Amino acid sequence: MRPVSIIGVGCTKFGERWDDSLRDLVVETGVAAIEDSGVTGEEIDALYVGNMSGGRFVEQEHIGALIADYAGLSRLHIPSTRVEAACASGGLALRQAFLAVASGYCDIVIAAGVEKMTDVSSGVAADALAAAADREWECFFGATFPALYAMMARLHMRRFGTTRDQLSLVAVKNHHHGCLNPISQYQTEITVEDVLCSPMVADPLHILDCSPITDGAAALVLAPAEIAKKYSDTPIRILASAQASDTLALHDRRDLTTLDATVHAGRSAFQQAGLTPPQIDLAEVHDCFTIAEILAIEDLGFVPKGSGGKAVEDGMTALSGALPVNTSGGLKACGHPVGATGIKQAYEIALQLRGEAGKRQVDEAEFGLAHNVGGSGGTAIVHIFSR
Amino acid sequence: MRPVSIIGVGCTKFGERWDDSLRDLVVETGVAAIEDSGVTGEEIDALYVGNMSGGRFVEQEHIGALIADYAGLSRLHIPSTRVEAACASGGLALRQAFLAVASGYCDIVIAAGVEKMTDVSSGVAADALAAAADREWECFFGATFPALYAMMARLHMRRFGTTRDQLSLVAVKNHHHGCLNPISQYQTEITVEDVLCSPMVADPLHILDCSPITDGAAALVLAPAEIAKKYSDTPIRILASAQASDTLALHDRRDLTTLDATVHAGRSAFQQAGLTPPQIDLAEVHDCFTIAEILAIEDLGFVPKGSGGKAVEDGMTALSGALPVNTSGGLKACGHPVGATGIKQAYEIALQLRGEAGKRQVDEAEFGLAHNVGGSGGTAIVHIFSR
Repeated sequence: MRPVSIIGVGCTKFGERWDDSLRDLVVETGVAAIEDSGVTGEEIDALYVGNMSGGRFVEQEHIGALIADYAGLSRLHIPSTRVEAACASGGLALRQAFLAVASGYCDIVIAAGVEKMTDVSSGVAADALAAAADREWECFFGATFPALYAMMARLHMRRFGTTRDQLSLVAVKNHHHGCLNPISQYQTEITVEDVLCSPMVADPLHILDCSPITDGAAALVLAPAEIAKKYSDTPIRILASAQASDTLALHDRRDLTTLDATVHAGRSAFQQAGLTPPQIDLAEVHDCFTIAEILAIEDLGFVPKGSGGKAVEDGMTALSGALPVNTSGGLKACGHPVGATGIKQAYEIALQLRGEAGKRQVDEAEFGLAHNVGGSGGTAIVHIFSR
Repeated sequence: MRPVSIIGVGCTKFGERWDDSLRDLVVETGVAAIEDSGVTGEEIDALYVGNMSGGRFVEQEHIGALIADYAGLSRLHIPSTRVEAACASGGLALRQAFLAVASGYCDIVIAAGVEKMTDVSSGVAADALAAAADREWECFFGATFPALYAMMARLHMRRFGTTRDQLSLVAVKNHHHGCLNPISQYQTEITVEDVLCSPMVADPLHILDCSPITDGAAALVLAPAEIAKKYSDTPIRILASAQASDTLALHDRRDLTTLDATVHAGRSAFQQAGLTPPQIDLAEVHDCFTIAEILAIEDLGFVPKGSGGKAVEDGMTALSGALPVNTSGGLKACGHPVGATGIKQAYEIALQLRGEAGKRQVDEAEFGLAHNVGGSGGTAIVHIFSR
């Protein structure tokens, strides 16, 4: 396997993009990434696109061929592959693209992610998202997606003393970061009191504990590291790419306060990169709910199990902290177009490592980590990047 | 890239499997393939599964993690990836699994495909399948999937003199083959008159020109060729794996009587294998409609453009012909569980090359080809196999 670099990045504005279709979003981000890299269409060997539920959201499958078509590449007949692992579809697209280049099978490969979620009612969207969980053993018995994470939150609070305010502080921090990110869906500061006063979704999770419904797309251009400098002055090296799976349903897990898929993917990624958690300068983790960010920093080994809430309270994960987490605003504030999120995370890390993150720039960031989760932990994907 | 072999195969009975869920089908075929290969769970490095529209058909996405879970592999946290390219999803899963082994990144990899289509009404199924075409430029204007292939058929008849009887003969032949295949959905002989007297779907295509709605699953176990003999006395070598894309909508194509994606994938596959079309002993091609088989044998180079109908009429593609095509019964008679079809094609070729195809065995078959199409040609995938 040979080293791989990111030589171009693109991301749309995230939000309720009423005037834009799925294909508009793909074209916008694809053009941005390709222009950023300077590659030509003829140089592209393959495309991988993450999309969770085009069938439900826009009644369109066959998204791989669609994006090749709308990116103007159909005349070149370039292979284009859609991958899906629920909310980890973007991370999975990046991983497949990485493997295609690392193996030597391809040179220039596009990894993209897209989801257009606001063309359906919120009830349909919630049901489409519930397809990430175990339909037969969870949804049919009334469990919504927030309810699954609410159970994890409740047990984490009871077992480790994690407080309601610590959950809120995750949202407060990520909204603050979102205010510094021009592409983020929410550009508003919130307070701990705002979270507590927002409507209850699934006790103990309020609506401001939950990531929103979002339209958006993101894309990366990958190349072998040995030729990356030809295209970019600031190529970003992908040091590790790891994926792990777990049971779909929570009731089969050994522990509700740990995502074992994250633990396994994280360990494998650190091993591949030859790094340890303290060496990471910033991380984008999968905060689909506030509790999920706390689980993630524990399961990735950044803090001991049970102390994630305290770490947030102590400011460790703030922009000025020892390990800034979700500088993009995370899924919570930047938004969560499910198929695009994993690519957007890598986009944010790449901007930070290139020193192009503007008001939210982390000083002298050298190593960054992106952590993308499918469903309630059935899939986890971890990438580690360096300047 | 290193040589790759198939060391185990499994396939469910295809048909209306009212008593079995998607997960039952996956378990049935997964166990069959793993037992056939003799690998243990601990040896499996990754899974790839093709599934077109679990979200629409059974309201379940995240099919990769689901099958790892139901195959009893979740405790091992093995990476499991769903890929989708409409009706070519199975071929795509095989291709990704092939690349994972060929690149040296993995040793033992499972390639599977599954679709459970009969849990919804036929109207919902037809609409779910229409998501393989261009929703905005075809379906919204009233084009059904059969209507798209009907246009291709009509132009092929006008331009090349292909006859209505030649179309029917594809169905007659494939039903005959289906009668010889214990897993096929239809085990009934039909006549040219039966096809003509069956209800019209989209002129000139009658219902007996169309592949059916089917439940089914299939799986293959892949390994590096150098260790394949350790697991199987009759490993089947994968000589080539090629994929190409095209516009989703027909109106953007240069020619309605050719699938350019097939042409490009076919050429690439023959080049990889170092073979020419006359060297192929049998082929499974994507006969979602009778006209599609005629287009396929032309576009793959087995016969000159325009002469596919004549080749069928002359018996070239019959079991006793120079190039037996769709000995499994094809999509037409064996059935078409869309995500499983590409894997079932490889399963049939593997059985034939192993000499285990029973009543439909092709004598001394050495080289076989499988051709899987997504939608109306937006994706095509071609694999070539040898004993």
